[in-house]
Amino acid sequence: MEYGKHLLLEVITKDGKDLASVAKMKKFFNLIIKKVKFTVVFKPIFYKFKPRKKGEISGITGMCVVSESHISIHTWPECNYFAFDIFSCSEFDENKVIDIISDLFDVKEIYSQIVERGLKINFKSRTKKSA
Amino acid sequence: MEYGKHLLLEVITKDGKDLASVAKMKKFFNLIIKKVKFTVVFKPIFYKFKPRKKGEISGITGMCVVSESHISIHTWPECNYFAFDIFSCSEFDENKVIDIISDLFDVKEIYSQIVERGLKINFKSRTKKSA
Repeated sequence: MEYGKHLLLEVITKDGKDLASVAKMKKFFNLIIKKVKFTVVFKPIFYKFKPRKKGEISGITGMCVVSESHISIHTWPECNYFAFDIFSCSEFDENKVIDIISDLFDVKEIYSQIVERGLKINFKSRTKKSA
Repeated sequence: MEYGKHLLLEVITKDGKDLASVAKMKKFFNLIIKKVKFTVVFKPIFYKFKPRKKGEISGITGMCVVSESHISIHTWPECNYFAFDIFSCSEFDENKVIDIISDLFDVKEIYSQIVERGLKINFKSRTKKSA
C-alpha cells in the first residue's frame, strides 16, 4: 500500500535575505513546478508575515496545490532556515529538488527525509481514541 | 533548534464516501481550525479530482495556510484512505486532532508520526550537490 512520496527538507542558508523575499519564493516554486514536472491546480500562494519588531526581516509561508498533491515552504529568515515539502502521488527525483535549491540559494546545509505515505513505516497506531 | 511540529497522519476509514465530499472536508478543516485553535491566513482551498472512470468516486486535495504554518489533506476515497498533515510553529495537542477525526469519520485505523522540523532528527545530510 503506497499512496504518496513525501519529501521533507530542512535547509540552512548562509544568509536570510532571500528567505524574506516573495519574488524569490515565486521563482523557486516555478522552477520546482517546471523542472520536477508538476501540474498546477491552484497557483502558488504566499503569505509574508509581519516583522515582530520594526526593521526586522520576516518569514514567508508558501503553498501550491498540484494535481500530484502539494508543495509547501515555511521560512525563518532570522534563523537562515526553511522547511520545504513535496507530497506527490507520482514518483519524482528528489535530487533534482536538491539541485534547484543548491543553485538558487546560498546553502550551508540541506537535510532530507522521505516518508512513504500510506505505508505506515515508523507510524504509531492511534486507532484507540484518546480520553 | 526547533522551528515546527509536523504531525503526519494516515487514516483508514470503513467507507470512502465522506472522503469524496468537499462539504465534509470543509467541516473537518473548520473543526480543526476552531478546536485546535489555528489562525486562518488564507481560507481553506479544496480541489476535487475528476473521476478516472465515469461513475467512480474521486479524491480531494485540501490546504489551508494558517499563521502557525499549514494544514493539508489528500484523500483516496476508492481506498478508504486519507493523509492529513499539520505543520505548526506553535505547540498543539495532536490528541485533539485524533479525537476530531475519530468523531467525524467512520475510522478503521489511524497512524501518526510527529517530525520536529528544524531538529534534523532522522534526516539525511544532502549538502553535497548530486551529480
